[in-house]
Amino acid sequence: MKTAKAKAIDGGVLAARGFRAAGVPAAIKYEGRNDVALIVADAPCSAAAVFTTNKVAAAPVIYDRMVAKGGKVQAILANSGCANACTGDDGYRDAELAALATAGELGIDPRHVMVASTGVIGRRLPMDRLLAGMKAAKAALGATEDHAMAAAKAIMTTDTRPKQAAASVMVGGRRVIVGGMAKGSGMIEPNMATMLAFVTTDAAIAPAMLRRAVKLAVARSFNRIVVDGDESTNDSLFVMASGAAGNEPIARAGEDFDAFLSALEIVAVSLARQMAADGEGATKFVTVCVKGARTARDAERAARAVAKSPLAKTSWFGKDPNWGRVLAAVGYSGADVVDMKTEVFYGREWAFRCGKVADERQLARLAKVMEKPELDVTVDLHLGVHEARIYTCDFSLDYVHINADYTT
Amino acid sequence: MKTAKAKAIDGGVLAARGFRAAGVPAAIKYEGRNDVALIVADAPCSAAAVFTTNKVAAAPVIYDRMVAKGGKVQAILANSGCANACTGDDGYRDAELAALATAGELGIDPRHVMVASTGVIGRRLPMDRLLAGMKAAKAALGATEDHAMAAAKAIMTTDTRPKQAAASVMVGGRRVIVGGMAKGSGMIEPNMATMLAFVTTDAAIAPAMLRRAVKLAVARSFNRIVVDGDESTNDSLFVMASGAAGNEPIARAGEDFDAFLSALEIVAVSLARQMAADGEGATKFVTVCVKGARTARDAERAARAVAKSPLAKTSWFGKDPNWGRVLAAVGYSGADVVDMKTEVFYGREWAFRCGKVADERQLARLAKVMEKPELDVTVDLHLGVHEARIYTCDFSLDYVHINADYTT
Repeated sequence: MKTAKAKAIDGGVLAARGFRAAGVPAAIKYEGRNDVALIVADAPCSAAAVFTTNKVAAAPVIYDRMVAKGGKVQAILANSGCANACTGDDGYRDAELAALATAGELGIDPRHVMVASTGVIGRRLPMDRLLAGMKAAKAALGATEDHAMAAAKAIMTTDTRPKQAAASVMVGGRRVIVGGMAKGSGMIEPNMATMLAFVTTDAAIAPAMLRRAVKLAVARSFNRIVVDGDESTNDSLFVMASGAAGNEPIARAGEDFDAFLSALEIVAVSLARQMAADGEGATKFVTVCVKGARTARDAERAARAVAKSPLAKTSWFGKDPNWGRVLAAVGYSGADVVDMKTEVFYGREWAFRCGKVADERQLARLAKVMEKPELDVTVDLHLGVHEARIYTCDFSLDYVHINADYTT
Repeated sequence: MKTAKAKAIDGGVLAARGFRAAGVPAAIKYEGRNDVALIVADAPCSAAAVFTTNKVAAAPVIYDRMVAKGGKVQAILANSGCANACTGDDGYRDAELAALATAGELGIDPRHVMVASTGVIGRRLPMDRLLAGMKAAKAALGATEDHAMAAAKAIMTTDTRPKQAAASVMVGGRRVIVGGMAKGSGMIEPNMATMLAFVTTDAAIAPAMLRRAVKLAVARSFNRIVVDGDESTNDSLFVMASGAAGNEPIARAGEDFDAFLSALEIVAVSLARQMAADGEGATKFVTVCVKGARTARDAERAARAVAKSPLAKTSWFGKDPNWGRVLAAVGYSGADVVDMKTEVFYGREWAFRCGKVADERQLARLAKVMEKPELDVTVDLHLGVHEARIYTCDFSLDYVHINADYTT
């Protein structure tokens, strides 16, 4: 029997059965916009989470790491507008209090509540408003698409649009759904920086297998995006599995696990691509692919160097097929490269081919490719068989506008 | 006896005796601006050079590496407007031909000529115009300040001003002068990226000691600047010592060497700072200092992470004392950091102090500091005794403007 094929479907964090959510305005930073989200499962779920590798981790991350050890989560309270980072012991107590108050309000086990924050660093959470928001969110809980959308909007910071994705797959004769929402934008780098993602599924799956699936899916999605190379203090991915699909619980590797993983990957990759496409000020979604590398590590670091290069990123914004900057970034990445063996493509059009540069006719073709809102930049090193792909965006005037004025 | 104290003086690449220079327009890329510079010593000089570590090295770099092995240089031909990079064997032959033709025209040993190029990657040098420019430059050679300035202007690309520096020091009873010129701007990173610097001195010094002095001076100057984190294919620093000062040749470590090094350092640091201050689109010269680090490596990587962070750089442009981004960059740098032990200062004003954030009064003081065109950003980790300093600039709207439109 072949592994069942997962397919993308409409929906978000409430596509899977067994969850309710809400998003409400609580004036954490601005009046009148949703900034508190609450996701509640009908019962304690198998849970897995991945957090920032930044040594300056925010209070909610420190708190959640402890909760994650239990492997069970039933509710997550999230806020935008304030990151609760660099707030010391007081900030930690705020995170803890928010979790405990949520558990109390919902009447669930306080060890099963996680918290997430995103926004400005170094400010204390306005606890009265957050807790009032939490109560309002509890009162507003529901399982419709509108509820999912309200929650997705409540976690946005400089995102220009809410990010949702869902997929379904057959697992042991039962239809399993995975769905999620995310926020991204600035500070996005390799190891999951300023992103929050919340994924729910109705699959029945053991916590250990869920952790394994999440690790694999993250490596192929969130850890492959770069916006500006900065990495935040708050990044977190939360996954909850309710088991409501009624499948035989996935307890080992095999077809069922593979099927579930494929659905999780669709959701994770979709959310990751939405984040890259909505990078602060981005006008283009760019996929950088380095192939023909001597080693996997070479492919990876060359692709990351190109994706992070401010000179390459500004050239994409300028619709300029400036392959020289791409090649220069590969050159300083540490990867093996022989310029005269290398090809650089934009879309399917070559710009530099083993020493040959585009003539007027080829430049005209390139000009067309550069106009598109989605751009593939491919570097073929012709030195080996390894390949790596990084999702990113261009670097625009608006990136500077947005980030020059963020706190003030 | 104490080591003599070097002091900065006026002048540039012709401050030292024994050299002539010229800068002329040769229409390499644009009409009517100086783009070919020629520096000629009266006799073969002790020489040292440092080149880009980018694996995609430009043709002139490959050529000069060979010349550098001889340790003697009498002339350097430089052009802006075309980098002669990624041009393969043909480009190498162009660099070689330019050097040989210069030697022929000057009637000097062809093994004593270096070449340097900066500008767009992937275009062949217009050899007819370059060689015509070389001949015109030879005819225009002279030793006045105007000649030095003309040469300094000829190497500019997106630089907004020419960069010159000079210093003098007593060495064994003789006055020794070191002077130089440089171009910087985009793609400047740790290991000397898209910078060209030309330094001359009338000191008498053995090639091995000159190399040693250059290595030490570079570590404290050019390798401490960051503009955008990109590293170019063409970076080169050239140093020629004519011996015209008549000092006892410096052949070993000791007071004379230290005195010479101190003058060389003044020139190198001044040129490096001028480059950082004139980073593409820069509105601010920023010195990032990380102190109290557990190790020297921690200090270095934390300072570099802050200096390279697009989020920190855009906040400086926005005059926003956003210490959260500074601390986040330290956090992902890999350096040991405990946020509650850390202080962040702008100028002499603190913004974050071991968990305490600035109140309104302190913010008012910070606002004044952020207005200034020179900004010191200091992070004290309070974990050890190590310290590192990086010179950089902010990231402005103009950086994006300049780089979105460079080749097209």
